[in-house]
Amino acid sequence: MTDSPAPATHLADNLRINGARLWDSLMELARIGATPKGGVCRLALTDLDKQGRELLIQWGREAGLGVTVDRIGNIFMRREGRNPSLPPIVAGSHIDTQPTGGKFDGNYGVLAGLEVVRSLNDLGLQTEAPIEIAAWTNEEGSRFVPVMMGSGVFAGAVPLEHALAARDLDGKTVGDELARIGFAGDQTPGDHPIGAYFEAHIEQGPVLEDEGLTIGVVLGTLGVRWYDCTITGMEAHAGPTPMNLRKDALQVATGIMQQVVAIAHRHPPHGRGTVGMVQVFPNSRNVIPGQVKFSIDLRNHTDALLETMAADIEAVIQRARSDSGLTIALEPVSSYPAQPFHAECIEQIEAAAKRLGHSHRRMISGAGHDAVYTARLAPTGMIFIPCKDGISHNEIEDALPEHVTAGADVLLHAMLQRAGIAS
Amino acid sequence: MTDSPAPATHLADNLRINGARLWDSLMELARIGATPKGGVCRLALTDLDKQGRELLIQWGREAGLGVTVDRIGNIFMRREGRNPSLPPIVAGSHIDTQPTGGKFDGNYGVLAGLEVVRSLNDLGLQTEAPIEIAAWTNEEGSRFVPVMMGSGVFAGAVPLEHALAARDLDGKTVGDELARIGFAGDQTPGDHPIGAYFEAHIEQGPVLEDEGLTIGVVLGTLGVRWYDCTITGMEAHAGPTPMNLRKDALQVATGIMQQVVAIAHRHPPHGRGTVGMVQVFPNSRNVIPGQVKFSIDLRNHTDALLETMAADIEAVIQRARSDSGLTIALEPVSSYPAQPFHAECIEQIEAAAKRLGHSHRRMISGAGHDAVYTARLAPTGMIFIPCKDGISHNEIEDALPEHVTAGADVLLHAMLQRAGIAS
Repeated sequence: MTDSPAPATHLADNLRINGARLWDSLMELARIGATPKGGVCRLALTDLDKQGRELLIQWGREAGLGVTVDRIGNIFMRREGRNPSLPPIVAGSHIDTQPTGGKFDGNYGVLAGLEVVRSLNDLGLQTEAPIEIAAWTNEEGSRFVPVMMGSGVFAGAVPLEHALAARDLDGKTVGDELARIGFAGDQTPGDHPIGAYFEAHIEQGPVLEDEGLTIGVVLGTLGVRWYDCTITGMEAHAGPTPMNLRKDALQVATGIMQQVVAIAHRHPPHGRGTVGMVQVFPNSRNVIPGQVKFSIDLRNHTDALLETMAADIEAVIQRARSDSGLTIALEPVSSYPAQPFHAECIEQIEAAAKRLGHSHRRMISGAGHDAVYTARLAPTGMIFIPCKDGISHNEIEDALPEHVTAGADVLLHAMLQRAGIAS
Repeated sequence: MTDSPAPATHLADNLRINGARLWDSLMELARIGATPKGGVCRLALTDLDKQGRELLIQWGREAGLGVTVDRIGNIFMRREGRNPSLPPIVAGSHIDTQPTGGKFDGNYGVLAGLEVVRSLNDLGLQTEAPIEIAAWTNEEGSRFVPVMMGSGVFAGAVPLEHALAARDLDGKTVGDELARIGFAGDQTPGDHPIGAYFEAHIEQGPVLEDEGLTIGVVLGTLGVRWYDCTITGMEAHAGPTPMNLRKDALQVATGIMQQVVAIAHRHPPHGRGTVGMVQVFPNSRNVIPGQVKFSIDLRNHTDALLETMAADIEAVIQRARSDSGLTIALEPVSSYPAQPFHAECIEQIEAAAKRLGHSHRRMISGAGHDAVYTARLAPTGMIFIPCKDGISHNEIEDALPEHVTAGADVLLHAMLQRAGIAS
């Protein structure tokens, strides 16, 4: 038995991507739109986005990949497999950034996919299924609403014509800007099979760093409900108005804000409750606030739990109405369902982390990603790596080279297991 | 006994001011700086203030009064008494307004004093002590800081040179503006004896209206402590940050804001606690607030109670610091002591309300008035009348003619009792 050749899985165990090359590519792409504080500003469909896309495609062609672009500007770069009838195993994310974005958010997922292909080329390995890299258009939503536009159109969740007509603050449309930068492709979005989808991403939260772990095996994304709450009391002089005759909108508001957080604590471990935005009127030191408006953001990992949290906040509002006698409006702003990822993809990522000896944990993504939409079409999984202090959407966003390498190694192994190595 | 002439006090019982004339003067003065919504914008030391002052002085001269102006622009109009050695009994307030002020705040106290004089003239009554009307400069503090500037300089609480050097947003000084409008008098502020001071004013709060009463017998003004509170946590993504790893500045802030109100409720009946101004950073729907700044306004009717409330809020902050681990700064902004009024003045006002058959109650002024400073120099009392919905510092500020008349009748009786009628 000791004389027999190592089986394919043992061969794969020893495979590694080239971490230095991946890091160099991340740093080179980050120079396009680099900001003085070390971040990146490369908004969707700007000249800088065009430069970033062209560099990516240049790298893809140098790696021997075939390139297609669809009508919403999503880029697919393909490495053929042995069996052309199999749908491709896709690694992807986005290369547009926030106005004060970092070098890793999105870019990491795309360039980790490129590094998988480059490594397969180095090793002369052929896969059974084709391997593809996807770069989705306008994930951030900073310039054009909605967020996750390219993957949303691809999944049929956002109508193409609606997306093409979206305008930025200058009135320019997505359609015109795609044509202007040369990325209005002719492929119909979604008319492109996907066998499975893997997205590597910085965590954008503090959990992995806090626990000293390298890999997050993502089980899915939290569902989200957004509300605006408006409380109307009576503006009055802080001095002459006794406590019992006040209609203090802020006092009622702060009670509800406390409950937003309490509701999240009552639904652990994935419940989240956040008040991020507050406006007080007239906002003057010696005037009792007559009106307060604030946002409510509730999240959890199943729609049932989210429904319970929504019922809880409605009960809190109803009680505040009867206790205070004030007018309280609670308006839903938007809602996204929880999106679980595919059990096999999750297991493949977890197995890869274990095989490679990286500390890891199962976890939930609190933020939305393109993987939320691909999960509607194909088995999907996500790989998280730690980011410094959990910070993203900020020029000081940072990640360690060893974590960047580890995540791409896990991506390589998960994709190979999914695609199969042609023996 | 029935044949003997009625004693002076009985004569006084039947005296009334002319309510229609007082109302007409209020409405005429309110035309200077009238706003489209029925309010008045007549900021201190503007051309409109000059017009208002000149109309007041014209009315005073028509009523036979002698006029003096001091170096901070305070106007005194004098009706001589029988005994020139007695200090004058003064009625006063201010005629400057807030930018969106009303017809009554301040103006009522000055014109009620004028109406007292006009009525004494009609009746041919001579008082023992002289009667004076005072119109204090810049009570509102809207254009020049500090508030209650004229009476503050008069009482020696605000240095004259400091007040004259105060600048508005255009860089113009009080001294230059006083000279420009012709009200830089030559009398040294404070070099003007006062026997007693009475100020009639709208309540600026809801108590009298709420209880259906006509006259407020004011016992004094609340002491005030102002603070700024700044809480620094850690700004983070609302989705990916679990509840137990958050440093949510707003969650800590709302707990303290609730306590500001609770502390006031623990010190009834005059305790007040108000958070009027709140700023949240970065104030974005899906970002956990990294910093929150807010104002705290604490009031009570004795300095000892106010000291207790101040200790309470400091304890709340200290507890919030140790519970949350966040940085919390509590900075004192300003502080005014409680100012009790003079027992005899209070009794004279109360006796007058009783004698005239007006429903009344003893109460505290939550807001500051010129009477706060005169009380440091001479026996002082204040008469409140209801204002609609307790609203002032607003163009919709309003009062009923019968209440305006009743307050001036009480002023007449209180002043006559204090000044004495020359037999």
